[in-house]
Amino acid sequence: MSDLAHIGHVELRTPKPEASLRFFEQVLGMEVEASEGRSVFLRGWGDYQRYCLKLTESDQAGLGHMALRAWSPDALEHRVAAIEAAGLGQGWIEGDLGHGPAYRFTDPDGHVMELYFETEKYDPPEHLRPSLKNQPQRYLGRGAAVKRLDHVNVLARDVLANRTFAQDVLGYRLHERIELDDGSEAGAWMSLSIAAHELIYVADAHRLQGRLHHLAFWVDTREEVLRAADLFLDHGIHIEAAPSKHAIAQGFFLYGFEPGGNRIEVTTGGYFVYDPDPEPTVWSEAERAHGQAWGVKTVESFHTYGTPSPEPPPS
Amino acid sequence: MSDLAHIGHVELRTPKPEASLRFFEQVLGMEVEASEGRSVFLRGWGDYQRYCLKLTESDQAGLGHMALRAWSPDALEHRVAAIEAAGLGQGWIEGDLGHGPAYRFTDPDGHVMELYFETEKYDPPEHLRPSLKNQPQRYLGRGAAVKRLDHVNVLARDVLANRTFAQDVLGYRLHERIELDDGSEAGAWMSLSIAAHELIYVADAHRLQGRLHHLAFWVDTREEVLRAADLFLDHGIHIEAAPSKHAIAQGFFLYGFEPGGNRIEVTTGGYFVYDPDPEPTVWSEAERAHGQAWGVKTVESFHTYGTPSPEPPPS
Amino acid sequence: MSDLAHIGHVELRTPKPEASLRFFEQVLGMEVEASEGRSVFLRGWGDYQRYCLKLTESDQAGLGHMALRAWSPDALEHRVAAIEAAGLGQGWIEGDLGHGPAYRFTDPDGHVMELYFETEKYDPPEHLRPSLKNQPQRYLGRGAAVKRLDHVNVLARDVLANRTFAQDVLGYRLHERIELDDGSEAGAWMSLSIAAHELIYVADAHRLQGRLHHLAFWVDTREEVLRAADLFLDHGIHIEAAPSKHAIAQGFFLYGFEPGGNRIEVTTGGYFVYDPDPEPTVWSEAERAHGQAWGVKTVESFHTYGTPSPEPPPS
Amino acid sequence: MSDLAHIGHVELRTPKPEASLRFFEQVLGMEVEASEGRSVFLRGWGDYQRYCLKLTESDQAGLGHMALRAWSPDALEHRVAAIEAAGLGQGWIEGDLGHGPAYRFTDPDGHVMELYFETEKYDPPEHLRPSLKNQPQRYLGRGAAVKRLDHVNVLARDVLANRTFAQDVLGYRLHERIELDDGSEAGAWMSLSIAAHELIYVADAHRLQGRLHHLAFWVDTREEVLRAADLFLDHGIHIEAAPSKHAIAQGFFLYGFEPGGNRIEVTTGGYFVYDPDPEPTVWSEAERAHGQAWGVKTVESFHTYGTPSPEPPPS
Repeated sequence: MSDLAHIGHVELRTPKPEASLRFFEQVLGMEVEASEGRSVFLRGWGDYQRYCLKLTESDQAGLGHMALRAWSPDALEHRVAAIEAAGLGQGWIEGDLGHGPAYRFTDPDGHVMELYFETEKYDPPEHLRPSLKNQPQRYLGRGAAVKRLDHVNVLARDVLANRTFAQDVLGYRLHERIELDDGSEAGAWMSLSIAAHELIYVADAHRLQGRLHHLAFWVDTREEVLRAADLFLDHGIHIEAAPSKHAIAQGFFLYGFEPGGNRIEVTTGGYFVYDPDPEPTVWSEAERAHGQAWGVKTVESFHTYGTPSPEPPPS
Repeated sequence: MSDLAHIGHVELRTPKPEASLRFFEQVLGMEVEASEGRSVFLRGWGDYQRYCLKLTESDQAGLGHMALRAWSPDALEHRVAAIEAAGLGQGWIEGDLGHGPAYRFTDPDGHVMELYFETEKYDPPEHLRPSLKNQPQRYLGRGAAVKRLDHVNVLARDVLANRTFAQDVLGYRLHERIELDDGSEAGAWMSLSIAAHELIYVADAHRLQGRLHHLAFWVDTREEVLRAADLFLDHGIHIEAAPSKHAIAQGFFLYGFEPGGNRIEVTTGGYFVYDPDPEPTVWSEAERAHGQAWGVKTVESFHTYGTPSPEPPPS
Repeated sequence: MSDLAHIGHVELRTPKPEASLRFFEQVLGMEVEASEGRSVFLRGWGDYQRYCLKLTESDQAGLGHMALRAWSPDALEHRVAAIEAAGLGQGWIEGDLGHGPAYRFTDPDGHVMELYFETEKYDPPEHLRPSLKNQPQRYLGRGAAVKRLDHVNVLARDVLANRTFAQDVLGYRLHERIELDDGSEAGAWMSLSIAAHELIYVADAHRLQGRLHHLAFWVDTREEVLRAADLFLDHGIHIEAAPSKHAIAQGFFLYGFEPGGNRIEVTTGGYFVYDPDPEPTVWSEAERAHGQAWGVKTVESFHTYGTPSPEPPPS
Repeated sequence: MSDLAHIGHVELRTPKPEASLRFFEQVLGMEVEASEGRSVFLRGWGDYQRYCLKLTESDQAGLGHMALRAWSPDALEHRVAAIEAAGLGQGWIEGDLGHGPAYRFTDPDGHVMELYFETEKYDPPEHLRPSLKNQPQRYLGRGAAVKRLDHVNVLARDVLANRTFAQDVLGYRLHERIELDDGSEAGAWMSLSIAAHELIYVADAHRLQGRLHHLAFWVDTREEVLRAADLFLDHGIHIEAAPSKHAIAQGFFLYGFEPGGNRIEVTTGGYFVYDPDPEPTVWSEAERAHGQAWGVKTVESFHTYGTPSPEPPPS
């Protein structure tokens, strides 16, 4: 068990802020909760906090930062001490819209991360008040109607170093990994909860640093993923990978690119890890060559493209 | 086989035109194709004609008319002759928005019906042009996003007389019916195609004439019916019958009331009748007492309420 | 409208009868209705006739024959006359298990076909008696639990000649077709009912005659197609094409090979053609290059492999 | 966070062992992992341990015991000390098939519970070896094909006392509860993980002790719950509550009775609680009177029947 609860929100950078906003609001169906400076804060209908996505205008696409919420003030202190001991800490910031003081640091690959505990619980305005009181927000069903942020997949030059940091310093549990024939680690799937994956590190084919592979947003059913593919199609969003089932973590996926160039997944399914002492699943190069669960071979760009990117996104 | 192809559109009367329009546009997710006088013409994304619903302001809720499209000009003439012979014809009208000359008549219970052949095929404006050319309109996924009108269920004082008219004069095929212990017919499910039901007559508990039980709109999956229930809930649409599976015709259903008071179904599923000489299924009173397919007992209002109605809709 | 109702059953040849039977019974979940000589007759739980598949031991895989049921004895006579006039008739046979006299003929490509009207309606044994009387058979849910045969896709050297025969002589309606840049027809999707496709002709890449591309069996939901993919995977059935949505006809598909080498599809969805005078959709080479609805490119074998086959099936 | 990971297995008593076994094996689709004395041990295809259900012949239906797996040996010791301090401990037992030493105790209402840590991970025989190595067992899809045990709902005379025990002594987190107008607690939904509910206490209408309301088994999709309803129907399993969506915890449900008389749920869905300091949702009597999420009113038996039962199960 970890001192950290979950990835509270992610800041995504986009060089096309208006088109990106339109995508997240109309195609993914998120709600704009607030705007501040060059950022817009968006939420899924199932988010208990005010937002899960901070969309920030920038000269390049990519990850701004990822913020992890701790289980308690004590847990927060405990983890900050561990990060400082690891030499990757950058210090406290006063907080941001919707949450209190946050400790800023990077993982070994340079992705900016924050830890925080104090947060504002979402209080919906009248027109978004739900009928069921155990639901944070009304369900409007606009676009893909994503419920919340599900997981973050980042690229790294050294997967092993970063997943070890995530395990040892942040307290993530490792559930699956890819080990190439040369013994190197090509990917690692980790979680803080019973969900099979919440944070993923995959080897950066370009050997760049601090890049993002994709953000994944959750819907409750596979039918909603299929429906999202129809929406992507008719909204002119390039589909990089049509809906199918991953072999690793068994999530059901749809991948496309938001107009700013970042890869976005709509996801559901997978399995739960109730076992407190599970043996991580290790996949060999030969096993990965079989493709996804039902044999689908993902396109080349899926294994090379990340943001910021030296080349434009596939289209 | 019949000379008639399908129910091309239905005119629905509403005493609350603005609220009804909002329901069909925002909750069912239909598109406004045109407006004319006190009527608005709406379409599902799968309609090959310009519209399937003509929503008309009126002092009372209920069915305006139901228009059936013939297979050909000859078939049209053929059926008009049969109707005239039956003595229920009212004569030709010049047509209406989107279709050519129509022959107006009533069924024995007094529901106004029309036959027509000439029609305008839908030509979408740029913002509704689909990605797949075998689809009439872009899929936007707004609200329940119904694809098209599926079937019409009307109440009648004498079910047997009306379904016999539909069979003998219009050419409908009977697939299922309810026969009460006293030998009377309480309901009849008929179709012009392999779909198990397109036109239904059910005994009017109030013994009134010309009333509507419900209009049913199609979605492709049961998941969309479940999703529609969430939308009804959060849009404040009273759910009369939560999603479940009918015993008769095995359709998957959700029933609610549009603001004008008319009962609306969101439906999918059921079975196809490929057999050209099927024996109709006859249900006894005792069999119907078992409820729907999985044992759900529909509420009393489902068996008594129709439009126009002497009492307000359940809420 | 046609004199013919639907494809009543198909005879499939297999050089591996035991393994093929195991596939249809355990993986597709069909019931063995009867055995006779070197043939086993199998049914889906939704078949109103005794069977939809006659599986026959043979030295080669491929189509034995396809039998179409007429709407009536008169319709049968009418179509037999048309076939004889076309010079492709072979004469009457006495019938086969479960149906009466049949007229045997071939299409121009040489696929053996039959027309019949008299048939035995299915009368389930006690252990297969359903709870709902409008359903032919109990639903047991074994394997993919296919409901019935849905469509047949055959290869032909000359698509145009064969689909013209199907239209003019058999009464099929053409809904979609592919026209290559050289003006030749690469595929044609036709139907006798509102279903978008029931009989398909596709150009044979090997320019052989009388070959089968695939038989498609129906399930009611996309979720059942996804579930079938998991079953194929864990039963060791090679998946040629993982579940996705076709562009043409918009059916949801899963393709694999039964042990005898024939390609089998599990399918659902698509659209209905209520329009009695639809304009067929014509796809160009460039349009087809976009892949399936969500961009999936089907593997090479999908465009070349048919049965009987000069080479073994993909594995 | 808790020292306990999850409910590892449940022992269910049945006076009709053969019929109950047939239900769990053929209708729910579980695998028999072992038999010992008067007990049969069954598993879902997603169980990482050898079994989640111990089915024991007994003179009465009801719960034998419920066994919770601790996060570690230390966590086990820690919780045992807390139970002993609470005065409800009964002492260690040597273990049972598939797991090591267990500490036996009761909750205040008298339900027998156990804590354990050491367990045998499932090692499938060849015919149950899965294709995907991150899955414990092959997916055969037999019957409802439940994946694993999901939650346990027990009746209690004093809900407050028992849920306080579960919170304070076992470390459960409270997510939802019902507070009647007289201030008493009618139900409490608790969990050890992000799943909204794993252990539920509901007031016993008969004011008996140690009774079971239901065991719930998980499937991954709502479509599988709907499919399970068809299977219940055609297997003659009485459906107490047809598939619909709960208001509390928002799970999608199907309730029926196994032949021994115990209520069984097939469930999926609901929401995840990522918030480490959530405010429990409190439902009033008036709010509960609205029925389930879409307005379904559960039948009277749902609020009164439990096992062992003074009267036979509804049928």
